[in-house]
Amino acid sequence: MEERTEIESLGEFGLIEYLTRNIEIQNAGTILGVGDDGAVIDHFGKQTVISTDMLVEGIHFDFMYTPLKHLGYKSVVVNLSDIYAMGAIPTHITVSIAFSNRLSVEALNEFYEGVYAACEKYNVDLIGGDTSSSQKGFVISVTAIGEVTPMQFIKRSTAQKGDLLCVSGDLGAAFLGLTLLEREKQIYLENPNIQPDLEEETYIIGRQLKPEARHDILGFLLHHKITPTSMMDVSDGLSSEAIHICKQSNLGCVIYEEKIPIAEKAREAAFKFGLDPTACALSGGEDYELLFTIKQEDYDKITASEEISVIGYMTDISEGTHIITKQGNKHKLQAQGWNAFKQ
Amino acid sequence: MEERTEIESLGEFGLIEYLTRNIEIQNAGTILGVGDDGAVIDHFGKQTVISTDMLVEGIHFDFMYTPLKHLGYKSVVVNLSDIYAMGAIPTHITVSIAFSNRLSVEALNEFYEGVYAACEKYNVDLIGGDTSSSQKGFVISVTAIGEVTPMQFIKRSTAQKGDLLCVSGDLGAAFLGLTLLEREKQIYLENPNIQPDLEEETYIIGRQLKPEARHDILGFLLHHKITPTSMMDVSDGLSSEAIHICKQSNLGCVIYEEKIPIAEKAREAAFKFGLDPTACALSGGEDYELLFTIKQEDYDKITASEEISVIGYMTDISEGTHIITKQGNKHKLQAQGWNAFKQ
Repeated sequence: MEERTEIESLGEFGLIEYLTRNIEIQNAGTILGVGDDGAVIDHFGKQTVISTDMLVEGIHFDFMYTPLKHLGYKSVVVNLSDIYAMGAIPTHITVSIAFSNRLSVEALNEFYEGVYAACEKYNVDLIGGDTSSSQKGFVISVTAIGEVTPMQFIKRSTAQKGDLLCVSGDLGAAFLGLTLLEREKQIYLENPNIQPDLEEETYIIGRQLKPEARHDILGFLLHHKITPTSMMDVSDGLSSEAIHICKQSNLGCVIYEEKIPIAEKAREAAFKFGLDPTACALSGGEDYELLFTIKQEDYDKITASEEISVIGYMTDISEGTHIITKQGNKHKLQAQGWNAFKQ
Repeated sequence: MEERTEIESLGEFGLIEYLTRNIEIQNAGTILGVGDDGAVIDHFGKQTVISTDMLVEGIHFDFMYTPLKHLGYKSVVVNLSDIYAMGAIPTHITVSIAFSNRLSVEALNEFYEGVYAACEKYNVDLIGGDTSSSQKGFVISVTAIGEVTPMQFIKRSTAQKGDLLCVSGDLGAAFLGLTLLEREKQIYLENPNIQPDLEEETYIIGRQLKPEARHDILGFLLHHKITPTSMMDVSDGLSSEAIHICKQSNLGCVIYEEKIPIAEKAREAAFKFGLDPTACALSGGEDYELLFTIKQEDYDKITASEEISVIGYMTDISEGTHIITKQGNKHKLQAQGWNAFKQ
C-alpha cells in the first residue's frame, strides 16, 4: 500500500510548508520567496512584488448571491490587498479564468467589467491571462505585480517586542454579510416566493461582495513617516493573522477586545444572528484590512488617523498569544481562521 | 429576455478580443499588454515579461494516463515556453492549484516534485502561489516571469514580407502521443485485463506528457547573432500559429509541406493510426516548439542548426496563407487549432 496522508491533517499552511520544504532559490534576484503576502524579486535595482490568489466556485463564492461584476472586482482587490500588505504599489495584473459553457459571453463580460472597474480604481493594468474551459464550475486565478523601493517592502517576520499592533478599518462585517447572504439563500431555496429584504444591510453585504484594498492606509503611513515593522492583510480573521505575525516574528502578543474595531452595523447584524461580534472579527475573515505593527514612539502619529486602531502589543514569545476580554479575562487566541469557520 | 451569446460562437481568440476591447493602459511602464505570448512591463530600465496559463483536469489532462510528476513539470514548461517565445529568459514562477480532497498529500507532493524538477532544469525560482479546495477536478494556474534587455523582446506582429518562416524541432508527435494514450485508455476501459504496451512509443508519449521548452534555440540564435523578426511558440498547431503571425504582422505566408519537420517515430505512429502526419503537425498542437521569422540574409547562419527548419516565407497579405503540398498543390491553411481537433 502506498502511503496516504489526508490534506485536512496538515491544514493549508502545513500543506504549503510541506510542499515547499525543499525549495532552493536559484536566482540571485529572488529577494523573498514563498511565505508572505507576496514574493519580492530584484530587477536591476528596483524591486517587484508578486502575489497570486485563486478563487473557486462553491468554495470562495456562490453565484446565487454573487453578481459577476462584483466577483470580477473582488478577484482583483484581494490580490491588490496582498501587494499593499507588502508596503508596495500594485501596477499590473493577469487574470486567468476557467468556465463551463453554462456561462454566456455577456456573463463573462460582466465579470470583466468588474475586473476593469478595479483596475481603474487602483490604477493597475491588466496585461494578460488565459481563458479555458472547465467541466464544471468557475475558477479565477489572478496574479498581481507591484513595485517597491529596494528593501523597503514590509514582511510579516520583522515585528519587535513592545511594538504596537494596529489594524485598519473595522473587522467582522464581511463574515456577517456572508452569513446573511447564506441565510437568505436557504430561505429562498425553501420558498422561492419570499423576496429577501437586504436594504438595511448594505454595509455588511458590501463588505462581503465588494471589498476594497487599503491603499489609503499606506498613503497615511507614508505621509506621516510611519514605517510599520511588520504587516499583512486580514483575509482569514484577526486571530489567525495575529498568530501569523507572532509566529513569523518569533514573538507573542496581547490584544484588547475593547480595542477591536467593529462597525455598529456589524454589531447589530451579529446581535440579530445571535453571534458574538468579537468572534466574527477574530475568526470571520475576508475583511481585507491591514494588520501591522509600529514602534511605540509612533503612537502619537498613528492616532491622527480615525481609520487605524491600536489593538494591542507584541510580547516575548514565552507570553503566548492572548486576548484580554472586556471583563478582564485572558484567553488564548485560536487560529481557526476562515476555512474552519465555514465548515 | 437578456441577450445571450454562446462562447463557442466567438472562439477563444474572439472571446479574448471581445473581453479586452476596452482596455486602457494606465501605467507608463506597460510596454506590451494582452495579445502576445507574454506581456512586457518596464521596471526602471530592464524589462519584465509575464505569461500565465491555466490547466484544467478533463480539458488539458486526464489523470488516467498523466502521472502527477509529469503534470507538474509540464505545467511549468508550457509557461516557460511562452517566455522564451518572447525572446526572454524566465526567472520566476508562481503556481496556484485547486484540488478536491480526493487527492492525498503524497499526490500533491508528486505534482510539486515535477514543478521543482522543471524549476531546476530551467533555472527558475518558485516564489509563490495559492492552494485552494475545489468541489471537483484539479486546476493549475502558473504565472512565469522573465527578463529581457529593453525593447529586445520579440513580438508576433513584426514579421516582414520576404522573411523566412522557421520552426524548431519537429511537429505533430505530441498530438500523436495523446491519440495513443486516448486509444489505450478506451481499450483499458473496455477490458481492464489488457495491459498497454507503450515501450515502442516512448518518443511520442514523451512529447505529450513531458514537453520541453526550447531555451537552446534562443541560445543558438543569440550565439549566431540572428535576431528573429517575429516569434511565438507552437501550442495550438503550426497552422493556427502561422496564421497568428500573419494576421498580427499584416502579411500572408507560404509553407512547403515537404519542409515541415516530422520525426520518423511520429510518421510511423500516424501511419498506424491512419492519420496524415502533415495534418498532425498543422493542427495537432502542444509541441512547444518555436515558430519564428528571420531575414533572408540570415539563411546561411540558420542552416548551422539541425534543430531548425526553414519551412516557408512571408508574403504580401493579399496572397493569403497557404501550404504547397508535396504534389505541388496549393491549399489555404485552416486555423482549426488544438481545441477544434479535440472535439
